[in-house]
Amino acid sequence: MRILGIDPGSVATGYGVVERRGAVAVHIAHGTLRPPRSAALPLRLAFLHAEVARLVAMQRPDAVAVEQVFAGRSPLSALVLGQARGAVLAALATAGVPIREIPPQHVKLAVTGTGAAEKSQVQAMVRRLLALDATPQRDAADALAAALCIANEGPLAHLQSRLGRVGARPSGRARNREDAVVPAPNLVVRRIR
Amino acid sequence: MRILGIDPGSVATGYGVVERRGAVAVHIAHGTLRPPRSAALPLRLAFLHAEVARLVAMQRPDAVAVEQVFAGRSPLSALVLGQARGAVLAALATAGVPIREIPPQHVKLAVTGTGAAEKSQVQAMVRRLLALDATPQRDAADALAAALCIANEGPLAHLQSRLGRVGARPSGRARNREDAVVPAPNLVVRRIR
Repeated sequence: MRILGIDPGSVATGYGVVERRGAVAVHIAHGTLRPPRSAALPLRLAFLHAEVARLVAMQRPDAVAVEQVFAGRSPLSALVLGQARGAVLAALATAGVPIREIPPQHVKLAVTGTGAAEKSQVQAMVRRLLALDATPQRDAADALAAALCIANEGPLAHLQSRLGRVGARPSGRARNREDAVVPAPNLVVRRIR
Repeated sequence: MRILGIDPGSVATGYGVVERRGAVAVHIAHGTLRPPRSAALPLRLAFLHAEVARLVAMQRPDAVAVEQVFAGRSPLSALVLGQARGAVLAALATAGVPIREIPPQHVKLAVTGTGAAEKSQVQAMVRRLLALDATPQRDAADALAAALCIANEGPLAHLQSRLGRVGARPSGRARNREDAVVPAPNLVVRRIR
């Protein structure tokens, strides 16, 4: 199972690709899409749309993880971020790949064990969990963390629904709608190692 | 010269096509794009992107007018609007059509003579200026008004630069970069009739 994580932004959109092989999450690729700064807004959005489409065509992920956004920002930054997200999400949906929006706390929890982790902690843990040679750039690290969040969910979803957890969906459906179950951070980290 | 006006929104995206023939603005088409409400956000954005691309391919406009947005909204509504705008602007830029972002006051000014007009006033004036049989729906009326705003700019831009208006660009350049000149409302209305 191959998962693409994306962290949309107007200046930099991070991406990361992770593959789950048995109980191990393997790093495939990561990077940052940077629309030319001097270009007009619509061209920067078209760039993002095209690059995301190209990324999906190249990497052929089984699922995409995108961080959910909350509106606890200024209206202006929410508008700017929204535009980048709009271009990215449209490209992903056009490519027909299943998309999962994941709350930022879950992403942090999955890789650091706390939902209130600093950005630098996420970067350091992503590097360690995926045995990377260097610390990934911030947006790429967030994208890899989102991908890891899904990569380590499948076995857990199965486990949790077998345990008859309150509110859990039947295992077949949980596999399709993985948002039914929230990953437990410790188990996730152990599974990755 | 054929102009497409677009008023992006997450629930309804209005569009309107106007052609300038000499000193007259002629109505070509208008309507509203409504992504299926029940669909997930990314699919709704992909719908918008695809429909806007189709619209440009069908109507082949020489320019597109989009209302500028200011961030005087709540962060949540700014995010939601931003996402729709992102999908729409990416599609327009990908199609390679020149895009003009127009401040909402200029749009209102161009069709009603005041930058503080009510939505219903814009609808009524658009209907009258384009001699429509019925009052267009609100988002479509805004889109038609934005298109009219550009449709009536060319001759004015020429006039104003000939008059040596302070801050005006040389006429050749003003024709390429029409945002250099703000239309005067009265003249615009007269020209349309």
